[in-house]
Amino acid sequence: MAKNKEEFVNQIASRTENFPQWYTDVILKTDMVDYSDVRGCMVIKPYGYGVWELIQKELDSRFKATGHKNAYFPLFIPESLLKKEAEHVEGFAPEVAWVTHGGNEELTERLCVRPTSETIICSMYSKWVHSYRDLPVLINQWANVVRWEKTTRPFLRTMEFLWQEGHTAHATAEEAQEETMKMLGVYKEFAENVLAIPVVTGRKSEKEKFAGAHATYTMEALMQDGKALQMGTSHNLGDHFAKAYDIKYLSKEGKLEYCYTTSWGTTTRMIGAVIMVHGDDRGLVLPPKVAPIQVRIIPVAMHKEGVLDKAYELKNQLEEAGLRVDIDASEQSAGWKFNECEMKGIPVRLEVGPKDIENNQVVLVRRDGHEKVFASMDGLADTIKNMLEEYHKHLLNKALEMREAHTTDALTMEELAEGVNHGFVRAMWCGERECEDAIKEETGGATTRCMPFEQKELSHVCVHCGKPAKQMMYFGKAY
Amino acid sequence: MAKNKEEFVNQIASRTENFPQWYTDVILKTDMVDYSDVRGCMVIKPYGYGVWELIQKELDSRFKATGHKNAYFPLFIPESLLKKEAEHVEGFAPEVAWVTHGGNEELTERLCVRPTSETIICSMYSKWVHSYRDLPVLINQWANVVRWEKTTRPFLRTMEFLWQEGHTAHATAEEAQEETMKMLGVYKEFAENVLAIPVVTGRKSEKEKFAGAHATYTMEALMQDGKALQMGTSHNLGDHFAKAYDIKYLSKEGKLEYCYTTSWGTTTRMIGAVIMVHGDDRGLVLPPKVAPIQVRIIPVAMHKEGVLDKAYELKNQLEEAGLRVDIDASEQSAGWKFNECEMKGIPVRLEVGPKDIENNQVVLVRRDGHEKVFASMDGLADTIKNMLEEYHKHLLNKALEMREAHTTDALTMEELAEGVNHGFVRAMWCGERECEDAIKEETGGATTRCMPFEQKELSHVCVHCGKPAKQMMYFGKAY
Repeated sequence: MAKNKEEFVNQIASRTENFPQWYTDVILKTDMVDYSDVRGCMVIKPYGYGVWELIQKELDSRFKATGHKNAYFPLFIPESLLKKEAEHVEGFAPEVAWVTHGGNEELTERLCVRPTSETIICSMYSKWVHSYRDLPVLINQWANVVRWEKTTRPFLRTMEFLWQEGHTAHATAEEAQEETMKMLGVYKEFAENVLAIPVVTGRKSEKEKFAGAHATYTMEALMQDGKALQMGTSHNLGDHFAKAYDIKYLSKEGKLEYCYTTSWGTTTRMIGAVIMVHGDDRGLVLPPKVAPIQVRIIPVAMHKEGVLDKAYELKNQLEEAGLRVDIDASEQSAGWKFNECEMKGIPVRLEVGPKDIENNQVVLVRRDGHEKVFASMDGLADTIKNMLEEYHKHLLNKALEMREAHTTDALTMEELAEGVNHGFVRAMWCGERECEDAIKEETGGATTRCMPFEQKELSHVCVHCGKPAKQMMYFGKAY
Repeated sequence: MAKNKEEFVNQIASRTENFPQWYTDVILKTDMVDYSDVRGCMVIKPYGYGVWELIQKELDSRFKATGHKNAYFPLFIPESLLKKEAEHVEGFAPEVAWVTHGGNEELTERLCVRPTSETIICSMYSKWVHSYRDLPVLINQWANVVRWEKTTRPFLRTMEFLWQEGHTAHATAEEAQEETMKMLGVYKEFAENVLAIPVVTGRKSEKEKFAGAHATYTMEALMQDGKALQMGTSHNLGDHFAKAYDIKYLSKEGKLEYCYTTSWGTTTRMIGAVIMVHGDDRGLVLPPKVAPIQVRIIPVAMHKEGVLDKAYELKNQLEEAGLRVDIDASEQSAGWKFNECEMKGIPVRLEVGPKDIENNQVVLVRRDGHEKVFASMDGLADTIKNMLEEYHKHLLNKALEMREAHTTDALTMEELAEGVNHGFVRAMWCGERECEDAIKEETGGATTRCMPFEQKELSHVCVHCGKPAKQMMYFGKAY
């Protein structure tokens, strides 16, 4: 068993020594993902896609509970349509894929593969919205999008990725702002209660906001290597797109008014966040709510009479109670099975052998090794559900502690430059683009992550220029 | 009310007078779909997408119950990869969209937007499969695909459509055949038990089979205008793709062997089938299992005290019992509401007013008008569930009767040519491509739909050439 364990651990690099290699090892060895024959495009394997399906289910139910419905818009956007909102096209045109031929013919107008769908969706809303009675329009789309990236990494940045994009239209600027904040709130609650990832929420700088937005709000998380990851964004698009795509409505007072629109999105990148926030040197650590397998049953002495039967009986029983369960009945050694179960990040391992059956009990081991308990077979589903709930809280707290330990306040550029090598840095900022650019330059790449809603006045002056500060900003080196 | 009713009915063409116009009217007026700014691409609006979500849920649970897992493969396929299977590329190359530029650069190799994913998936299976222990591989993908079609019609034939494509790899030809038949069986059960559409299952001719397949099996349905619609196909790909993409495994006996693969798919086209099989002159008719709204509550005299409260109370009660329910509390007249409810194909209308509340009852009206009953508020959810079950059976039987009334046996070319103008025609066929082509030519477009598993010997000779017949074939004019 010792040898087996070593073999397993040796398959993945150490997190502390080489985090990028650790990440690559983990996602490949656990069959989350694979590289494909297409540059920059990943294959999401069943185990990784299982996580995505659970994410989708959780988010989708939240979208529906807040009054949104799903729809589907075309993959292709004619070049002329893309170009109607000036800032938007400037932001996206350099990174889109162009379809120029259909069948054997050259197209008269080339089509871009959607990098995001504001343009095509707004052009439809312009047809659908006539009166205040048609508002608000609350639609979400689950789709694939393509952005022509130079360097890619599975889940974190790929040419094609899967996401959801909400697009709404409202009668007033206030309602659009309310929607923008509401959906950011949904994202934050989801990140914490489902992914067990604590997030900082706030507003993006003008430089970092979405191309064409009035204001972008974001949730930002800290990875174990001290890097920041943007986990989801919610954009108040003001009337920019309504004006560019002519979305107008007749108000109660009989006046023709422009709408105010929003958009908000989260992507398969969140799977990368789960891996980088929770994983350890033994592999993946999956929060229970997005673990495709929550409990793996490992029969001990499985060739003894009654053991496998009991294992399958327990599996059925737990599945009926709503748990996701499998059995490892392979011919591998127990040690190998334990290690593989850990590597895959399965929250709870359940061991059952002849002795346990005699005593009407099983052994439960949490992925973090914190708990190893003998549990009665009576009320087992409830015992495990409680264990998973505790485990979720534990993961969230651990991630929060990690983030706090890696978040510092900087009053000087030295402190800022040092801090961003290890985590988030809070610092005062004058709000000027020049300082934002200079800070990035002088720190080897730190960017403004967000102006948090929870402000503190660390000092009165900008950390860079010494002029009066406008707000506290989170800085970080980002994925 | 009479005037309202007329207004509504006048919005859609008569099925019997102009079926294509009726179809277009229905899908647009019921907000199922809309045309987009992109030629040949549709927008699936929330009401239409709601049907697709229910189809997905029902199919997905069946795929999982038969051991399949979902995964996701890239949208783009490099031209060289597409070209490895000769028949396949010949079949698909004329109808693919080509990406030639990424960002501002021309690609060194152009990428096709997947028309189907055998090529990219097989190239991955070649990496994943090494030993008999890795088999079978049972994977499904929910995705969008693109085929450059000349003429399009929403749901039935569009440049981009949504579908699922299952791709499996097996150790032996027998297992691949078994899988192919199993999934066709899943499709047939789904069509009948969920969509309430009876289907004929059987094998496609060599001419009509999937490009690169060993054999294609299909389910075919008859629309109310007498045209045939291919509802789903299941392909036994033999070892064709395994050889082209090098999917090999080491057998138990230590021999390197090629795999046998299958693929099977159904698409958003099924929504078109639902519309064309069940709809009537008053609009959509949705089978209960794919109706986004199963029950619409229409409060009568809704401004009287207690009526709206009771309506919402009933809604909550029915939703808790698992029914999909909404309320029309708009200011429209009752007649307008009744007609809109019919137009949208909602299976059951529930009326509740002051009198009903006094008597602890509601009025239930089935979409086909067959039943209009006073039902007690006690046990209402069960009453409605039974009603929906009966309604499903009724729709299936009605569709079956319609199909049987439009299916004829032909012993002569005259009978065949006449029959295919109104429905399916069964006729004996020699199995030769020449006769198949000639029949199409001489009947103004009838194609072989399938060789049904249930064969009858109508005569000994081919309906066209008079030479010995090999089997009975279904002919039809197809969408």
